[in-house]
Amino acid sequence: MTSAIDTVSALREEVCRANIELWRRGLATFTFGNASAIDRSRGLIVIKPSGVPYADLHPESVVVTDLDGCVVEGKLRPSSDLMTHVVLYKAFPQIAGVVHTHSHYTTVWAQSRREIPCLGTTHADYFHGPVPVTAHLEGPEIHADYEENTGHAIVRRFARLDPIRMPAVLVAGHASFCWGSSVGAAVETASVLEEVARLAYDTMTLNAAAEPIPPDLLDKHFFRKHGPGAYYGQPPLEVAPATEVRR
Amino acid sequence: MTSAIDTVSALREEVCRANIELWRRGLATFTFGNASAIDRSRGLIVIKPSGVPYADLHPESVVVTDLDGCVVEGKLRPSSDLMTHVVLYKAFPQIAGVVHTHSHYTTVWAQSRREIPCLGTTHADYFHGPVPVTAHLEGPEIHADYEENTGHAIVRRFARLDPIRMPAVLVAGHASFCWGSSVGAAVETASVLEEVARLAYDTMTLNAAAEPIPPDLLDKHFFRKHGPGAYYGQPPLEVAPATEVRR
Amino acid sequence: MTSAIDTVSALREEVCRANIELWRRGLATFTFGNASAIDRSRGLIVIKPSGVPYADLHPESVVVTDLDGCVVEGKLRPSSDLMTHVVLYKAFPQIAGVVHTHSHYTTVWAQSRREIPCLGTTHADYFHGPVPVTAHLEGPEIHADYEENTGHAIVRRFARLDPIRMPAVLVAGHASFCWGSSVGAAVETASVLEEVARLAYDTMTLNAAAEPIPPDLLDKHFFRKHGPGAYYGQPPLEVAPATEVRR
Amino acid sequence: MTSAIDTVSALREEVCRANIELWRRGLATFTFGNASAIDRSRGLIVIKPSGVPYADLHPESVVVTDLDGCVVEGKLRPSSDLMTHVVLYKAFPQIAGVVHTHSHYTTVWAQSRREIPCLGTTHADYFHGPVPVTAHLEGPEIHADYEENTGHAIVRRFARLDPIRMPAVLVAGHASFCWGSSVGAAVETASVLEEVARLAYDTMTLNAAAEPIPPDLLDKHFFRKHGPGAYYGQPPLEVAPATEVRR
Repeated sequence: MTSAIDTVSALREEVCRANIELWRRGLATFTFGNASAIDRSRGLIVIKPSGVPYADLHPESVVVTDLDGCVVEGKLRPSSDLMTHVVLYKAFPQIAGVVHTHSHYTTVWAQSRREIPCLGTTHADYFHGPVPVTAHLEGPEIHADYEENTGHAIVRRFARLDPIRMPAVLVAGHASFCWGSSVGAAVETASVLEEVARLAYDTMTLNAAAEPIPPDLLDKHFFRKHGPGAYYGQPPLEVAPATEVRR
Repeated sequence: MTSAIDTVSALREEVCRANIELWRRGLATFTFGNASAIDRSRGLIVIKPSGVPYADLHPESVVVTDLDGCVVEGKLRPSSDLMTHVVLYKAFPQIAGVVHTHSHYTTVWAQSRREIPCLGTTHADYFHGPVPVTAHLEGPEIHADYEENTGHAIVRRFARLDPIRMPAVLVAGHASFCWGSSVGAAVETASVLEEVARLAYDTMTLNAAAEPIPPDLLDKHFFRKHGPGAYYGQPPLEVAPATEVRR
Repeated sequence: MTSAIDTVSALREEVCRANIELWRRGLATFTFGNASAIDRSRGLIVIKPSGVPYADLHPESVVVTDLDGCVVEGKLRPSSDLMTHVVLYKAFPQIAGVVHTHSHYTTVWAQSRREIPCLGTTHADYFHGPVPVTAHLEGPEIHADYEENTGHAIVRRFARLDPIRMPAVLVAGHASFCWGSSVGAAVETASVLEEVARLAYDTMTLNAAAEPIPPDLLDKHFFRKHGPGAYYGQPPLEVAPATEVRR
Repeated sequence: MTSAIDTVSALREEVCRANIELWRRGLATFTFGNASAIDRSRGLIVIKPSGVPYADLHPESVVVTDLDGCVVEGKLRPSSDLMTHVVLYKAFPQIAGVVHTHSHYTTVWAQSRREIPCLGTTHADYFHGPVPVTAHLEGPEIHADYEENTGHAIVRRFARLDPIRMPAVLVAGHASFCWGSSVGAAVETASVLEEVARLAYDTMTLNAAAEPIPPDLLDKHFFRKHGPGAYYGQPPLEVAPATEVRR
């Protein structure tokens, strides 16, 4: 069995690497973005420190908190968006990593306060439908517990959405959050979402009347890559039979 | 005479290089794109394995199939788009390489479900007319044999088009396919098409009433580079006479 | 106490580095941009020489002037925009660095003669409201003392604005100026402003009816980062308590 | 006195370098672009060979022709656009270098068949008014002597324009030509024109009603950099007096 120290130490490295990856891929510039992971068995969240440049991050500088957002390890302040991460981890028990970025095109859609329509198969390969946008927060929700209330606005928007089939959201007037089964998976989703958002921006500015793809095509592409009937990529644990026909 | 092993080995290298080139030129990100070549004399198709990152590709990891898409060499699953390639090779006997990418601007036009109009001589140098877009597939075509039916939709769209003068197509709501006399030529075409699609995007968003160039100018530029009257570039087998006048 | 020579020498290095940084970040191409700093205690301004490529800049080639713009050190002509800097230093006593660039998207907004509306929290984190645009200069203001009059047009535009809460301006039909507590801070502001301008461009072209964020949200984000109640980033002089809760 | 061999040899190097520079700056991709220079005293034009990739260019591979476009040195075919260059050199006796590129945004404006309006001072610093666009060629002009007729269309468009104050043109449905006092100056102009075209594209798509800057401001900026009253940059042959005031 892995010791608590080992687990947290590995998670620190993973979270550090994920934050740097956000920067390396151009999803986060300046200090606009943060990634976290959760160890549910021990009730610990590991997150980027606030305002520290990505180039200066080390596994020791990431911050460890409990599930209420109280710092339990680390000398630096955690990301100011920590409480949004906390609310998402509590509301979506299936997820283990959360990423927040101001990546350019997702922020454009968030600023436009429009969901990203599913205009093509690139989108459908990863997101089962339009990427939703939250409502604006009202005054009292902004004045106190702003970051926590941002999380609640996301959770309210997901009342009838499955966070596994839709691993991303736009916060109105702000930017995007993504999540996944690990912080690395959340980074990958954030990276694809940025290109999907850019494709949708260019499609709508070229043809304002562009229509979403039909539901059949959406299902085909999403389930070609996800769930029990998936046949994209290589099988995880066995060698593909050499005579298999792809059709 | 070249042995079967030599031919397939050379084709594996060529296909591996072409797939990496898609990535190096920014035409394919993540694992969104695949290139294949055909050896018609031996009835073999060589194609990228499904879901493998471009950085991890080796000549040994590409997959060899017969003309029905049955794997005859290779331990990995072939690209999930294999059957589209198969249909194109059967329908267009003059081609020897096929490339599929979600390159940004070709995907934007495919998502807009609009053909790319021939707005300038850059386009006319490579494509003899507007780049066509297929019809959307109907439900039953999506539910079974989806990738094969994508190929049939392309072939139907080319009922009155010459695949040599028009070496590219947009699949509605999806992305682009290009082809050519070799897989390297298909990559070159995919690369030019991306810039042509970007030029057309910016032209139409600047001036929604922009008109295609006149047919005379289209012919002039296309045939300046293609066919018996071509005079662009260097003659393939002889040295240009030093006193030639270019006019 | 630091000697005059040491101070000016350090400022030369700082200004040289800031000008090179404008170029390295893609904010200034060709020779379109200049950064300066002021030493108020000695009444000296240090500024880029006119028309010198960024790659050729050295601390010795930057120019030192008095507060009227008369050269006191340096063999090269100062930036042709020097007198605009001089006017800003005189009108805004709180600032110590000024940056002028033709960075792409700020120039687009300046050419459009539109202020940049505050469409999101990325903007609100740095600028407390829309980034203003000056009026066009009239004929006589252009014919004589053009660069000085550009400064006056900026100062007139700030009659009811606080240059600390709004550290940037667009000059109509021209480009942007930014400033700050140091020339390095002004470069940082110019860099963020370019991304904010690009976000606003894409938001308005996607949705021409996009609305500014509510005043409550603007205040929340600006004062989360600025002023006595700020809690973003790390406290400058003390270690954050390990048990602090971020909410 | 310099011998004929020395002059041509130096010009070959200069033209080779200029063509490579077009590619290095992203103004020419594939083989879409060519630069030439003229030695008027000897009646020789030096130009890129047709269809040769920029990475493969050497001073020996560039082609030397007489003023009628007949090759006098070099084993390769000259650029297919040679005759356009020839016509420009004959019509504009003040110029010594010509550059043709399909650089992205200049091509967008050429495809839109719209002149580039002077929307800002970046434009006014280099071009004294809107950058003109030619008329489309008519059928007979396309069928025979197409490249020469392209030159004539440019010259007709300049009937009332000064090629020194306006060192660039858009050819309708095609791309841009630039020129200058040397091939290096023409490359610099092509490089600035691309950014000016991109600024104008973004300005017009943000605000379709954007107006050109006033004539006074156009004159101020153009003549601040050009002609006897210029005061931008460093004086070419003397050291600027240390006490000069810039105002």
